[in-house]
Amino acid sequence: MNEHIVKSYEDELNTLTAECARLGGLAEAQVADAINAVVKRDQSLASAAMERDDQLDVLQQDIERKAIRLIALRQPMANDLRRTVAAMKIAGELERIGDLGKNIAKRTLVIVESEPMAPLTRSLERLGKLVAARLKAVLDAYTRSDAERAVAVWSQDDEVDEHYNSLFRELLTYMMGDPRTITACAHMLFVAKNLERIGDHATNIAEMVCYEVTGEEMANRPKTDAFQA
Amino acid sequence: MNEHIVKSYEDELNTLTAECARLGGLAEAQVADAINAVVKRDQSLASAAMERDDQLDVLQQDIERKAIRLIALRQPMANDLRRTVAAMKIAGELERIGDLGKNIAKRTLVIVESEPMAPLTRSLERLGKLVAARLKAVLDAYTRSDAERAVAVWSQDDEVDEHYNSLFRELLTYMMGDPRTITACAHMLFVAKNLERIGDHATNIAEMVCYEVTGEEMANRPKTDAFQA
Repeated sequence: MNEHIVKSYEDELNTLTAECARLGGLAEAQVADAINAVVKRDQSLASAAMERDDQLDVLQQDIERKAIRLIALRQPMANDLRRTVAAMKIAGELERIGDLGKNIAKRTLVIVESEPMAPLTRSLERLGKLVAARLKAVLDAYTRSDAERAVAVWSQDDEVDEHYNSLFRELLTYMMGDPRTITACAHMLFVAKNLERIGDHATNIAEMVCYEVTGEEMANRPKTDAFQA
Repeated sequence: MNEHIVKSYEDELNTLTAECARLGGLAEAQVADAINAVVKRDQSLASAAMERDDQLDVLQQDIERKAIRLIALRQPMANDLRRTVAAMKIAGELERIGDLGKNIAKRTLVIVESEPMAPLTRSLERLGKLVAARLKAVLDAYTRSDAERAVAVWSQDDEVDEHYNSLFRELLTYMMGDPRTITACAHMLFVAKNLERIGDHATNIAEMVCYEVTGEEMANRPKTDAFQA
């Protein structure tokens, strides 16, 4: 077979994976900046994150187009097909993560106008750090084709739910104690919810990495049975 | 060309579109049942909607697999490729809509334990009906390959945002007026948010239908400039 053609196919596959990893880096930065913006009440950091969102959309659409073209033209089989599909699906999850980061940043612009609520902000920061760490772990698993690490992220997803449920109750208690805080707390509620959803997307990515590397689907994911906020 | 092979390709394409339309019907039912469950405070309707969610997941995964196989084996071009990709992407949006319906139903189980809050429930019902109507319109556009109808849905997406923003303010006012309602209102806040997100997914589907039928991307979607809850 013409070595030039074989090399080019390999290049296309590598490019796809690399672009997906790059989108992962952008998404990580969005999440980190959004959390910092809320915690530090930093409006310019929030605005910067909001402006960067378009970059992620463009890159995700590009990855999708490349993946579809690759499937149509190269007819990849087995590993190569899984790799291509994984890049396309993971890019979709990352774009949604970036969107959630942008929404968190948007709410910052409202939250900064209220009283600082230090204990709540600290709890939100803890949830944010946990979610950011899971996202980092799962992107490491992706770039290293590390199914074990992906499974580890996947099986600890109730940690985020527990933090979120606790923060939800904390926010409600705060609101009931001081009705003047209701508006700001409602926004923090949504910030917390967006962080929990980012955690969900990280778990989705973990499943996709596992499938790409092992070829096997994972069983239904464990969800905390206790009432979910 | 062997007529048997050509017919089979056409069958595969038609099956894909039909399954996507079927998933659309399931998603519509989920949304309708979820809204009814909240408004009528009907726990068994809520539970039924929650149990049905798996069906949507399974169907969406099946559509995705079929679409990828079709692309790899048939190497569709132009219209056929757009149709296949549209089915795959729309199925993804519909699965997420079904998920949101399930989450709305879950919250019903909490909301029913509180005082009925008739004015809020009516506002929520109005938002729900509006969103359900948009979903129906966009699925009609899909099954009829009607780009005009899809554009109509797409260009009215700020109607949902306006209803949502108004309901958000109504809920905050209610909470500030009577702190005993805070927990129930917080859940209604999330129900309202989920309905707004279903509306967003309907708008996404409208874009995908347009692209499938015309081959052209739509410009950036209009978003209400006023502060967004």
